[in-house]
Amino acid sequence: MAIDVDKVEGEIDYNKVIKEFGVESVAPLKSRLKKLEEISLLYRRGIIFAHRDLNRILDAIEKKENFAVLTGFNPSAPLHFGNKMFIDQAIAFQKLGGKVYIPLSDDETYVFGKSDSLKEATERAYNLIPKILALGLDEDKTKIFISSRCKYVYPLAIELSRRTTLSTIRAIFGFKDSDNPGKFFYGIIQAAHILLPQIDELEGRIPTVVPIGIDQDPYIRLARDLAEKLNFIKPSSTNHFFMRGLRGGKMSGSKKESAIFLDDDLSVVKEKIMNALTGGAPTIEEHKKFGGNPEKCVVFEYFKFHLVEDDKELEKIYLECKHGERVCGDCKKECFEKLAKFLESYKEKVEKAKDRVEKVLLE
Amino acid sequence: MAIDVDKVEGEIDYNKVIKEFGVESVAPLKSRLKKLEEISLLYRRGIIFAHRDLNRILDAIEKKENFAVLTGFNPSAPLHFGNKMFIDQAIAFQKLGGKVYIPLSDDETYVFGKSDSLKEATERAYNLIPKILALGLDEDKTKIFISSRCKYVYPLAIELSRRTTLSTIRAIFGFKDSDNPGKFFYGIIQAAHILLPQIDELEGRIPTVVPIGIDQDPYIRLARDLAEKLNFIKPSSTNHFFMRGLRGGKMSGSKKESAIFLDDDLSVVKEKIMNALTGGAPTIEEHKKFGGNPEKCVVFEYFKFHLVEDDKELEKIYLECKHGERVCGDCKKECFEKLAKFLESYKEKVEKAKDRVEKVLLE
Repeated sequence: MAIDVDKVEGEIDYNKVIKEFGVESVAPLKSRLKKLEEISLLYRRGIIFAHRDLNRILDAIEKKENFAVLTGFNPSAPLHFGNKMFIDQAIAFQKLGGKVYIPLSDDETYVFGKSDSLKEATERAYNLIPKILALGLDEDKTKIFISSRCKYVYPLAIELSRRTTLSTIRAIFGFKDSDNPGKFFYGIIQAAHILLPQIDELEGRIPTVVPIGIDQDPYIRLARDLAEKLNFIKPSSTNHFFMRGLRGGKMSGSKKESAIFLDDDLSVVKEKIMNALTGGAPTIEEHKKFGGNPEKCVVFEYFKFHLVEDDKELEKIYLECKHGERVCGDCKKECFEKLAKFLESYKEKVEKAKDRVEKVLLE
Repeated sequence: MAIDVDKVEGEIDYNKVIKEFGVESVAPLKSRLKKLEEISLLYRRGIIFAHRDLNRILDAIEKKENFAVLTGFNPSAPLHFGNKMFIDQAIAFQKLGGKVYIPLSDDETYVFGKSDSLKEATERAYNLIPKILALGLDEDKTKIFISSRCKYVYPLAIELSRRTTLSTIRAIFGFKDSDNPGKFFYGIIQAAHILLPQIDELEGRIPTVVPIGIDQDPYIRLARDLAEKLNFIKPSSTNHFFMRGLRGGKMSGSKKESAIFLDDDLSVVKEKIMNALTGGAPTIEEHKKFGGNPEKCVVFEYFKFHLVEDDKELEKIYLECKHGERVCGDCKKECFEKLAKFLESYKEKVEKAKDRVEKVLLE
């Protein structure tokens, strides 16, 4: 198992992760998560496993106080179902009163060499906006900003910069002197994204929750440290289980075969699902006799994390597999049908969301 | 003698400086400088002593082609007569067709600890604009931008960042790992200022001349290097003799007693001038007998660099001093009178220039 800010490899022991990163398990909060569980399968199914200071957000929800939800995207690749989970969380918090802020880090794309020009990265970021909105965000409570274009980002980064040192950035991100200076500064920019909702020109000091991959927890730690120095409220965070790659390993935007992308053609989706790694037994006979293993099945993850809202339906799928009553071929076909239905409806929503881009864009 | 990007100390041997910095003497260009000499005492009196690629600008002037003049200010201190020389050069180039661009580096002020907040530095930068304009810039051919607020700066810096390394920045600026990351990134921001006029959204690729202190030549070298990598035209530069501090040493914005500031009260100006270091002999008797030394006289510098446009009048002052006919007390009084006349008229011009701020501000 290796998790750092650059990579996630191998099978992940999430209990070990909680210890190593110093985050907290959500288990003791169980009694306070009812509202979130009602509206979000990610909470209901224990997919959110860890957090920092989530109590502060739960307090705000209870007291109906202002809070922000922030989750960012690097526009280096199109959105896949792994990315969707962050938006799904944002939507859940939004339904409970949170104002959603979404930074699109075109600068990150470019300084880390994932686009040939900044302009290209910026355009990709613009194009992402309707695709993000279409997942179900309420445009009246959503602000999306493009890092290199939003007037608040660089000035806030400058403010933060004086509260840290190059050594700190180096220690967190592991950059070398042969790296470009933009990579180092991007460490500060990302902290600025996280604290942006709290500036006077926007929401002022409010609790902010950041659904984020556990591998990016060091960024949260930096942002929390800087928040304290600037008299901002330390941001909270939540972490969820990673979706696995379709053929095992990590799901990644840069490995096309590892994920279903939200703009994949249905023919591609079908091929990807039909070739996905399952929890099925080696032969149909064995499968029928001994049953499959849905916990290890990537196809089941698509049901559990995305496609099956109804808990009883999910349980049925689970048990049918476990008891060998559901074979992988049929199951994959069902998964594809659900995906196709979702993606076709999503496509229409993206078209409709294009009119709302200007409304949510924070310039 | 010590000149680096942080300090200028001791008596400066400008021939040595030319060699050490690898800039070129303006002497061989003499025949091409007639137009500049006609309109600028800085050229006429040999105060501009060195350059990089000035021929490119002289070509543009001759061919009546588009070119830019860029000179920046750190709003950490009010403007003094040393700063005025950069504007005077910009005005001269502007009269010959150049478009003037002036970055005000509020980010620099803040990351280097010269203001308590970025906001304070930004406000200081805004307040500088009428003070710069009032020196005689044509607002139709002038753009002034505040570094943290101008939408083109950070994106260009990001573009440049990928063309260099942290080692390069460290080698030029000498920062340490214990410094804040904003200092390192500011090295790139300053290069972005210099190349900004050449972006597609503004002038496109045009020759740019940067009047700059020789101590800041390393910034020009970095900008020239990055320009080449980005297919921009390598910026040209000019360097002029530094004005000395009123009591010897370097004139500096942070040493109030070293300079006349353009917003000093006349009572302060009088006191500063009356206490200034002169080239006078130790006693009036000796002065009358052996004469003074205007070359070593700070008061004479104010006449030569700023207050006496007419060459014959300047020569008269020079010879009167040299021949002991002009004594320091009278000479200082005359200098003060000229300063007072200049500063009172300037004050009115600053008031009038306030209406033109919006016109020149590049946001």
